[in-house]
Amino acid sequence: MTLQTLSINKERLEKRIHELAEIGKISDTGVCRLALSKEDRKAVETVKRWMEEAGLTARIDHFGNLIGRLEGKSPDAPILMVGSHIDSQPYGGRFDGVIGVLGALEVVQTMLEKNIVPDTPIEVVAFCDEEGCRFNKGLFGVRGILGKLEEGELERKDKNGVTRREALIEFGCDPTKFKESEYNEGSIGAFLEMHIEQGPILEAKDVPVGIVTGISGPLWLSVELEGFAGHAGSVPMSMRQDALVGAAKVIVALNELSSQDPSAPTVGTVGSLQVFPDSRNIIPEKVTFTVDLRDIDINRRHVIEANLRKQIKEITKTHGLQCTITEDTNSEPRYCSERLMNIMRQQSAKIGLSPIELMSGPFHDSLSMSYACEYGMIFVRCKDGISHNPKEFSTIEDIVLGTELLYHTVINY
Amino acid sequence: MTLQTLSINKERLEKRIHELAEIGKISDTGVCRLALSKEDRKAVETVKRWMEEAGLTARIDHFGNLIGRLEGKSPDAPILMVGSHIDSQPYGGRFDGVIGVLGALEVVQTMLEKNIVPDTPIEVVAFCDEEGCRFNKGLFGVRGILGKLEEGELERKDKNGVTRREALIEFGCDPTKFKESEYNEGSIGAFLEMHIEQGPILEAKDVPVGIVTGISGPLWLSVELEGFAGHAGSVPMSMRQDALVGAAKVIVALNELSSQDPSAPTVGTVGSLQVFPDSRNIIPEKVTFTVDLRDIDINRRHVIEANLRKQIKEITKTHGLQCTITEDTNSEPRYCSERLMNIMRQQSAKIGLSPIELMSGPFHDSLSMSYACEYGMIFVRCKDGISHNPKEFSTIEDIVLGTELLYHTVINY
Repeated sequence: MTLQTLSINKERLEKRIHELAEIGKISDTGVCRLALSKEDRKAVETVKRWMEEAGLTARIDHFGNLIGRLEGKSPDAPILMVGSHIDSQPYGGRFDGVIGVLGALEVVQTMLEKNIVPDTPIEVVAFCDEEGCRFNKGLFGVRGILGKLEEGELERKDKNGVTRREALIEFGCDPTKFKESEYNEGSIGAFLEMHIEQGPILEAKDVPVGIVTGISGPLWLSVELEGFAGHAGSVPMSMRQDALVGAAKVIVALNELSSQDPSAPTVGTVGSLQVFPDSRNIIPEKVTFTVDLRDIDINRRHVIEANLRKQIKEITKTHGLQCTITEDTNSEPRYCSERLMNIMRQQSAKIGLSPIELMSGPFHDSLSMSYACEYGMIFVRCKDGISHNPKEFSTIEDIVLGTELLYHTVINY
Repeated sequence: MTLQTLSINKERLEKRIHELAEIGKISDTGVCRLALSKEDRKAVETVKRWMEEAGLTARIDHFGNLIGRLEGKSPDAPILMVGSHIDSQPYGGRFDGVIGVLGALEVVQTMLEKNIVPDTPIEVVAFCDEEGCRFNKGLFGVRGILGKLEEGELERKDKNGVTRREALIEFGCDPTKFKESEYNEGSIGAFLEMHIEQGPILEAKDVPVGIVTGISGPLWLSVELEGFAGHAGSVPMSMRQDALVGAAKVIVALNELSSQDPSAPTVGTVGSLQVFPDSRNIIPEKVTFTVDLRDIDINRRHVIEANLRKQIKEITKTHGLQCTITEDTNSEPRYCSERLMNIMRQQSAKIGLSPIELMSGPFHDSLSMSYACEYGMIFVRCKDGISHNPKEFSTIEDIVLGTELLYHTVINY
């Protein structure tokens, strides 16, 4: 498609992205807008004003979510929710979450300008605290409206000792009234989220926009290998119980298992590793490391996990190591709605886009929504796959194409 | 041999080892006797008293070395030096160094008791600061008498800001008089050192005593691999530049190269490794690690090093990594004197010992002495190869056998 035939308003969307990036701005291109902070409040109020200017009925609920509603022909029909989040990492970028919220607003504002009245109500939402970096637990607002908060969450403290309860009250919310802000089961019909990819696939394929097939569930393991320390100069190779050699073989094994099917989106990563005693002339006695394994196909992930555990067993036996494996997280993949993906495919073809289809490795608000309703996601290409970093960057042209697809998906919902 | 036919005095040697272990004692079996500390001074004075009681002329030189002299028939003939050190690691054991000094004293005291007058003078020596842990540079006393101190060594500070110069003066030495304590070239004819093995070979071979063939020179490298960070959930395996996967392959390669000839004493170790940013869901961008490669055969070591560098090149190319290799230390192996080893072999046979011959991975005072005269070393079995640890342990029976071999080596020198 050419940008000349756009339905949405590119200039307005671009202006808003730039304006929002000024709130909590760090360095030239970064943003620090921690959940429930003064900057977050200012950003939420700014977007609320834009929602109201567009003609939506906007409110901030007791979880800190911002929700702008466009009434449908059937006000009681299950709601179509569209949005993402506008809180950021402490050393974050301008696009993560933001384009999903401002894109959704642009979609609905365009509908209003074109006098398109949807069958079902549409709610544009900026969920509170998706990132989770302030209280070390994210997806707060979205879990809130679905009644999925866990015990003790309000007592979690930030680095300054402020509890989430205190932060919510400071933000203007009333935690005693959470129930008023919850949605009844079945009241939300679908959730649509546009987001930057936070990965390098679209760039590598030279495609501005992608249709997400699902969010892969990560398996998080912690592995501890224990051998026996000794002088690096005096213990013969054949008598060693070197925990780092064992760990190295596990890292290579995970890499090979995750790469064996080049057509599969499996990813396996050892991101963190510590050596004890970590001295150049002492044979490592203990090595602890993490395993992050993700796949959109849970069965394939199970097979790889089983193979990995088998190889760990063999490696530890070969090197005389003790091994402890702890499972920290074990999430299942959550697939996008075929129906929503079909609408996206058809509308893409209609407007001249050729999106590829890809899974999402990272989590999004959509992950929580997937347990309440059908969901669909649109990814927008970002430079070098960089995110959670001031260097995060997407062109306005790509964002506009993603928003245009979101618009056509919504009006054909 | 049986312990009944011993020349040396087992009870006296055992008593002294136990008594010395009381000075700077930590926990039940450990010792903290840092070089030039009050505990070190007390230990040096204790051994000096034993030397004088035995009939030696003892002095503490300006480097902090303790030297006890038994005059020879030819007082001007090159000296036979016998000894080791009595300073310890901060969390050290009772035997490291100590048995070499007290064993040498026992040998000379036995000679005196048997009215054996040696041809050449014999000096029993406890070198100052072999360990090097206080000022982060060891082999101090031995390098001192050989005129091998480096510029700025006296200004090195310990953790409390005390310089070595201040510590030497506090100890009773006078750094302005170093020249008086140096030995002229050619004035030392040979050096003999008995030491615990600090490795597991003798124990594995079930042999109490070993004849050392040489001290292998370590090659110390620091390797830095740099790739590109990315979200562990979103960057496909084929697009990754994972520095930790590269490092793991190098660790495995070093382990294989060092193990390929099971009959060779080659040892290769990665003892220290750091990952950046070290987060479980971020692909490692940078990994730095050490390489310690030792071999008694410098040519074999060169070949392994060349192979390792070649493999690092291939691995970094495969994984799109940048690599920087820094050479921190490159020592050549120092071989023991064939003549001294032959005396040890003959005397072992005579007294009924069947020592194996082995290289030393760790350094000793002998390493420095090897540049000034011929040298020989005797290793005594130690439990589990443990050293630099309060758990360090050798039986008095094994120590006595080593000392007996040292005695016969000295009187047949």
